[in-house]
Amino acid sequence: MDEFELIDRWFTGRGATRADVRLPVGDDAAIVAPPPGAELVLALDTIVAGTHFPAGTPARAVGHRALAVNLSDIAAMGAEPAWALLGLTLPAVDEDWVAEFSRGLDELARRHGIALIGGDTTRGALAATLTLAGLLPPGTALRRRGAQAGDDIWVSGTPGDAAAGLAILQGRLQAAGEARERLLQRFLLPEPRVALGIALRGLASACIDVSDGLAGDLGKLCAASGTGARIESRALPLSPALVEAAGPEAAPGLALAGGDDYELLFTAPAGLRGAVGALTAGVECRRIGTVIAGREVLVDGAALPRDAGHGFDHFAG
Amino acid sequence: MDEFELIDRWFTGRGATRADVRLPVGDDAAIVAPPPGAELVLALDTIVAGTHFPAGTPARAVGHRALAVNLSDIAAMGAEPAWALLGLTLPAVDEDWVAEFSRGLDELARRHGIALIGGDTTRGALAATLTLAGLLPPGTALRRRGAQAGDDIWVSGTPGDAAAGLAILQGRLQAAGEARERLLQRFLLPEPRVALGIALRGLASACIDVSDGLAGDLGKLCAASGTGARIESRALPLSPALVEAAGPEAAPGLALAGGDDYELLFTAPAGLRGAVGALTAGVECRRIGTVIAGREVLVDGAALPRDAGHGFDHFAG
Repeated sequence: MDEFELIDRWFTGRGATRADVRLPVGDDAAIVAPPPGAELVLALDTIVAGTHFPAGTPARAVGHRALAVNLSDIAAMGAEPAWALLGLTLPAVDEDWVAEFSRGLDELARRHGIALIGGDTTRGALAATLTLAGLLPPGTALRRRGAQAGDDIWVSGTPGDAAAGLAILQGRLQAAGEARERLLQRFLLPEPRVALGIALRGLASACIDVSDGLAGDLGKLCAASGTGARIESRALPLSPALVEAAGPEAAPGLALAGGDDYELLFTAPAGLRGAVGALTAGVECRRIGTVIAGREVLVDGAALPRDAGHGFDHFAG
Repeated sequence: MDEFELIDRWFTGRGATRADVRLPVGDDAAIVAPPPGAELVLALDTIVAGTHFPAGTPARAVGHRALAVNLSDIAAMGAEPAWALLGLTLPAVDEDWVAEFSRGLDELARRHGIALIGGDTTRGALAATLTLAGLLPPGTALRRRGAQAGDDIWVSGTPGDAAAGLAILQGRLQAAGEARERLLQRFLLPEPRVALGIALRGLASACIDVSDGLAGDLGKLCAASGTGARIESRALPLSPALVEAAGPEAAPGLALAGGDDYELLFTAPAGLRGAVGALTAGVECRRIGTVIAGREVLVDGAALPRDAGHGFDHFAG
């Protein structure tokens, strides 16, 4: 079996069917027809075995992750995802692996109405680069900049779960039963907050997705906005599974520093507190602090070191 | 230096400046505003060290190639390139290497009015995945399908040069002086035929770019069109440099089977022969054969084996 048959078999027609796809996989390039007047939002992320996920991660989870990391970026902009292109690099053709990878990607794509319109399969070290395009009414994008002193700081879901799931997978943390399953699932099959991002148009003053750790990503949002922030660790929404597995002392640290959550971290004027609290977009949001003047990010009153703002550095590991 | 500073320094603001870029590199995703009514053409290709270019290829040539392979796909559709996103994977941060890679990409992007609007730099085996988006008036795309029996078959430029350049680089072929320089250049810094692709709208009945070898790519065009083809090796446009380096006996074989040319191979009705021959789009086009009924691709009357249609198979090497 050669690469072309591989592409044809596993990636042709994957994801959702969309009327705006004029020409899918199979020619020199794909053609789509964006709705007139829409802005186009484009994200590209690479995930590399051993850097972004442990070697040996189930293929279905790798396929899911290749799309999820981009879907989370699109969600953080408040955009509606539409079309994806995949670059998959494999050390060898393993049909079972590719089938499972394709299933993980396909399931997540269909759930969000995304058509897979192109791809390239090559031989090399295991890695996947995906480009995701989304659509947005002009001028409605959520940005990292825009936070104002006095705004509330919110986070969706229960950050820290994914970091605990990774620690369990790597044998650095012990957990059993439902807590174990839930935390593993949160690392392996994260659910980007697309509906929440769309619902936050016109409400959030700034937004970022939590991929490198809540504290570090908050530092980036503040740097872009020219503000500081004050958050309280006791306000962090910790899942019962995280508290059970990591213990009440260690859990807030995982929620602050752990990566791979793919939750949304956003700010909104205090006057919109009721509206944000009332949102029903598939996930609960919790108020964890306040935007302040200056440049410091304070956790329980203590400043984070400046370089904590980069979270997990893929070149430092 | 960490990956974020690397991205900021080398890829922010690269390529052309375009008024339709609403938000470039630096947030969770980029935002662009396509012109109303335009179709969007999207291509993604990965190049891997050791598979698509020899390890040790100059960084500037790798940066050029990452864009050129996609630019050639966009050219083959007759589209106008607009925006690019880059996923670059590196074993380590080597500033000089990244600077030269960025220069190669930037030079080619500027020449074609392409803005680099996003990217992701990660640690891993050397590879680059680029997504290129282009624009097209609705319904004007050049496709692989559409060739009709009786159409002329045309190719741009002088195919085979790049394969000879690669052979020289790898020590499999000897050449000196100007011929050597020209063939190396053709492999290292191929020039996609963007202006020709746009000029062929309304003239070509089918089109493909020559990336895997002329004969193999002609096989793909024929398979998509449901036709056969008859070409004459004596009609192939061979460069003096290729004939000098490879000799008159071996040169046609390199032109037929060698990859990485990034020329356009297209068909057009015989009635448009004068119009196609008169095109001035930066490169000469040569008529090399005729589309025929059936499914066979005949070179000098002999059928190519069916599996020649795949050209160079990245998984077979």
